[in-house]
Amino acid sequence: MPRTKHYFRINMKLSKLVFETTKNAPSGAKIISHILLTRAGFIKQVANGIYTLGMPAQKMALKIENIIRDEMNKIDGQEVKFPVVMPKELWALSGRYYSIGAEMARFKDRADHDMVLGMTHEEAAVHFAMNTISSYQKLPFMIYQIQTKFRDEPRSRGGLIRVREFTMKDAYSFHTSFEDLEKHYYLQHQAYENIFRRIGLKNFISVRSDSGMMGGKIAHEFMLLTPDGEDELVICDHCGYKSNMEVAEAELEIFTPPSNPPTGGKLSNDLPLSEVFTGKHKTIEEVSAFLNVKATDIIKAVVFVEKDGKNPIVVFLRGDLDVNESKLKKVIQKEILPFDASNDETLAFGNIGLIGLPDNISVVYDKSIENRAGMVTGANKPEYHISNFNVGRDIEIKEYVDVAKVKAGQKCKNCSHELKIENGIEIGNIFQLGDKYTKSMGMTVLNEKGEMINPIMGCYGIGVGRAIASIVQDSYDDKGMILPVSVAPWTVHICPIRMDNEKVKEISFEIYNQLNQLGIDTIIDDRETLSPGVKFADADLFGMPIRLVVSPKGIEKDEIEIMIRKTREVIMVKRENLIEQINQLIFAN
Amino acid sequence: MPRTKHYFRINMKLSKLVFETTKNAPSGAKIISHILLTRAGFIKQVANGIYTLGMPAQKMALKIENIIRDEMNKIDGQEVKFPVVMPKELWALSGRYYSIGAEMARFKDRADHDMVLGMTHEEAAVHFAMNTISSYQKLPFMIYQIQTKFRDEPRSRGGLIRVREFTMKDAYSFHTSFEDLEKHYYLQHQAYENIFRRIGLKNFISVRSDSGMMGGKIAHEFMLLTPDGEDELVICDHCGYKSNMEVAEAELEIFTPPSNPPTGGKLSNDLPLSEVFTGKHKTIEEVSAFLNVKATDIIKAVVFVEKDGKNPIVVFLRGDLDVNESKLKKVIQKEILPFDASNDETLAFGNIGLIGLPDNISVVYDKSIENRAGMVTGANKPEYHISNFNVGRDIEIKEYVDVAKVKAGQKCKNCSHELKIENGIEIGNIFQLGDKYTKSMGMTVLNEKGEMINPIMGCYGIGVGRAIASIVQDSYDDKGMILPVSVAPWTVHICPIRMDNEKVKEISFEIYNQLNQLGIDTIIDDRETLSPGVKFADADLFGMPIRLVVSPKGIEKDEIEIMIRKTREVIMVKRENLIEQINQLIFAN
Repeated sequence: MPRTKHYFRINMKLSKLVFETTKNAPSGAKIISHILLTRAGFIKQVANGIYTLGMPAQKMALKIENIIRDEMNKIDGQEVKFPVVMPKELWALSGRYYSIGAEMARFKDRADHDMVLGMTHEEAAVHFAMNTISSYQKLPFMIYQIQTKFRDEPRSRGGLIRVREFTMKDAYSFHTSFEDLEKHYYLQHQAYENIFRRIGLKNFISVRSDSGMMGGKIAHEFMLLTPDGEDELVICDHCGYKSNMEVAEAELEIFTPPSNPPTGGKLSNDLPLSEVFTGKHKTIEEVSAFLNVKATDIIKAVVFVEKDGKNPIVVFLRGDLDVNESKLKKVIQKEILPFDASNDETLAFGNIGLIGLPDNISVVYDKSIENRAGMVTGANKPEYHISNFNVGRDIEIKEYVDVAKVKAGQKCKNCSHELKIENGIEIGNIFQLGDKYTKSMGMTVLNEKGEMINPIMGCYGIGVGRAIASIVQDSYDDKGMILPVSVAPWTVHICPIRMDNEKVKEISFEIYNQLNQLGIDTIIDDRETLSPGVKFADADLFGMPIRLVVSPKGIEKDEIEIMIRKTREVIMVKRENLIEQINQLIFAN
Repeated sequence: MPRTKHYFRINMKLSKLVFETTKNAPSGAKIISHILLTRAGFIKQVANGIYTLGMPAQKMALKIENIIRDEMNKIDGQEVKFPVVMPKELWALSGRYYSIGAEMARFKDRADHDMVLGMTHEEAAVHFAMNTISSYQKLPFMIYQIQTKFRDEPRSRGGLIRVREFTMKDAYSFHTSFEDLEKHYYLQHQAYENIFRRIGLKNFISVRSDSGMMGGKIAHEFMLLTPDGEDELVICDHCGYKSNMEVAEAELEIFTPPSNPPTGGKLSNDLPLSEVFTGKHKTIEEVSAFLNVKATDIIKAVVFVEKDGKNPIVVFLRGDLDVNESKLKKVIQKEILPFDASNDETLAFGNIGLIGLPDNISVVYDKSIENRAGMVTGANKPEYHISNFNVGRDIEIKEYVDVAKVKAGQKCKNCSHELKIENGIEIGNIFQLGDKYTKSMGMTVLNEKGEMINPIMGCYGIGVGRAIASIVQDSYDDKGMILPVSVAPWTVHICPIRMDNEKVKEISFEIYNQLNQLGIDTIIDDRETLSPGVKFADADLFGMPIRLVVSPKGIEKDEIEIMIRKTREVIMVKRENLIEQINQLIFAN
């Protein structure tokens, strides 16, 4: 016989909860969610980037997971479960066993087979699908799981923000065409918005993003806007353009050569090239100051090197701009590293210019120098630069590419309004994968015409632990977390003042049991010897939406104090109206 | 605003479900749950002992997990989450990094740190507890998680019965005394009984068991009785004695030497030792037949060797009995392996006896030979045995131990009634750990008297995947699985006959949507071109509790056919009474 289940409505006495609050932030912690989750005892570090979730954090995780489930199920997701440990063969098929480096944990099993820990599950999804279905009639479908992943991040940091082990919802959709994928991709985008809104996030946006190691072309990241974020986002408030810095573009300023020589005649389209002594002045700032030219009139040279090669790659761009490495990688289709040219014998470090570079150097010209005239560039020999350099006149460039990092104040390429830059934490991502995995792994289905095709895939991820951190990151004050009803471990936090007062104790537990029976998640601070100050501080730190204070004074007037954590508004209500009031507050939140 | 959630009530069109049914069992599969789960497409093997769970199996897993949660929460469990990947240091503290062998997967992370995959989480639980609490006032408490584990089993087999990666509920309780642990242990035992009953298991029992690598003394296993089980269970129907064979004991028969020589006078207490030629007859059966003596009158010698040593260990026991290796390991406190003595030069293989053994041999005397007279034993030289051997007279034995394997028909040591042996699959286990982990890892709390003590622990495990397999194992017929309402992926399975009949289609989907809205998990076989036979076969294989058939004939009479999967009872009901009838059936199950 089925019965009512209250899995997530586990009431709790604080005296028994395995936790410990502390006043001090963990050493080295800078990110607010890391500090507050640790101070409240919600999480405990086991190793670098590896955490145990205490009961409150795990309760939040379960609530978040169930909201995710609900939204995935609404768009016809089928929940499955792929293994954490997979055989090498699966990842060799897709090629990622070789293309992914130290981020992937690998071990040999007792039979000496190479195994990997899943950091994402495209391979497992294709394995399952290709061994199960063979006809287009099953397509489209979307399968998802909520499962542990391990990614050996070089720099885990910030508590649950960047960890090595994490719980993730990852979904995979299969389609007969890109058009069909796009329809589903849009539904996913909506589902993600619903999820983030339902878990209580306010300041989030979706931005165009790089597809990175996933392959594919179109991708979006959902970003929580926060100064603690390690991603830079380029935003146009006017037309709504939003992009991760990695793939952001700005309007290219069209340069019209000055018709008259500027004052002093030093820089002009018509003046001949001339070598100028710049001595020890090497950086854009130094050269700019020494020659009294604007940074925008200097051509900057930035040197990289192929990850597995030796040949330097020189990027030339306008002096006020920086290179966007993500864009550069895409252009040259190679992994690159910054290169320290100061000890390189072939390159005149600090004086690298467009004319007379050694032959073995690859060169990339950014669009920002297209048509530029009257520029300063390096002379490719120590202590000298060249002035009056006209790009069209003094060198022939066949191809310009966009590899510059967008700066705040540049113009939007869509609407020419000013761009701003904000910081964000990635809270979810969606990718149009295409046939990268189905093709490499050999998954085919027969289409309507009886032809073999590789299905088109999309994939969609949300980290559960990072969602917990983001919720805290998005809503806190100087006293602690401010958690929304939908995901707070408990909705109501009862603080009895003076547990030695029998009446206080009796009424407190009466309310606790009543809320319990109504299915309202309630925790009671039944610790006997603590002062009200300590109990209030813990309640504020915990951040449950509604705090009740049961005190001897209140009881005299048959009143209970309600404090709304978010607004810190205090209401005194008669005992008989308490439940109704709480229900109203829950409903309103 | 909170809203009604139906996470697990995901209705489904069979045309879109990623599954494939097959008529044939997977090659080599012998266990019925393995065969049926694979044939129904619920599970898909990824590697040896590693599976992907399809949507139906994952839905079962979620339902089982939530029943487990409910029962754990009822006895004040606090759900937490420990990491899958843990640093070596944690397991070195407890010593298990060294004492556990190839079952534990290990790898080096990118910083060259040794890491392990959790196969159980005592270390993580103690780490969390010892870094969080310091006073006895928090004790007792119980924390649990539902998390992925990896155990590199040498012989994974039987589908989800014995896998390498699995989802497990593991709970850990902490106490100030053994008495307190015992109280909680009893609650856990009850919770386990509730869980197994609620997930629909019928034929399960709990037995005393070996604590194995967990340490500790008292332990119970919950066992599903099934001929496919690889564990042997010793059961007394009279007094309720139930034990895993590993630790089972039987009544020791007290041997009274015969007062008169038996017929033929060949064997008697008073006759002198005599060497008898037995030639090539070496086994108990051969010697018994050749000398015409009962197996019970021969002393059997079984040879083992220490796992990391060379010296043989000889166990002497009554000829009709076998050695129980688990009991032997406990007695000699060493890991052992069976030893092939046939090529050993020091031992007279097939003729090993109690007198004249080489000095370097360790000897263990089983209680079954205590006081025995008139026995046959090896002569420790080829081709000869010794007869008329009286244990008390011809050799002095200081200590007898119980290392014999219980046989069916032996007497219960508690009530002297006959014991029987059944096969079982372990579906859960509970252990009284004591202070093994808190002591080795240095966890202390101050007790009421201000003394530092190591808390006393218990641990409690249930494998979710094995529960799925056990449910199938416990309830099936020749047509497929028979799943209980509490854990079936769907409660109702609708088979529309002739999807090309508009009326059939319309009414089928009307019922589907109606059940959907009522929160009754329903799947509809909307595949257009399949014959009723194929649809019925799949429905039987799937084993959902209630099957509905919507057919043109039925519709003419305004009737729907209900079949109860368990009994195969068929009821025709009027459309208007359908929902009430279904609700009654669900309530009755």
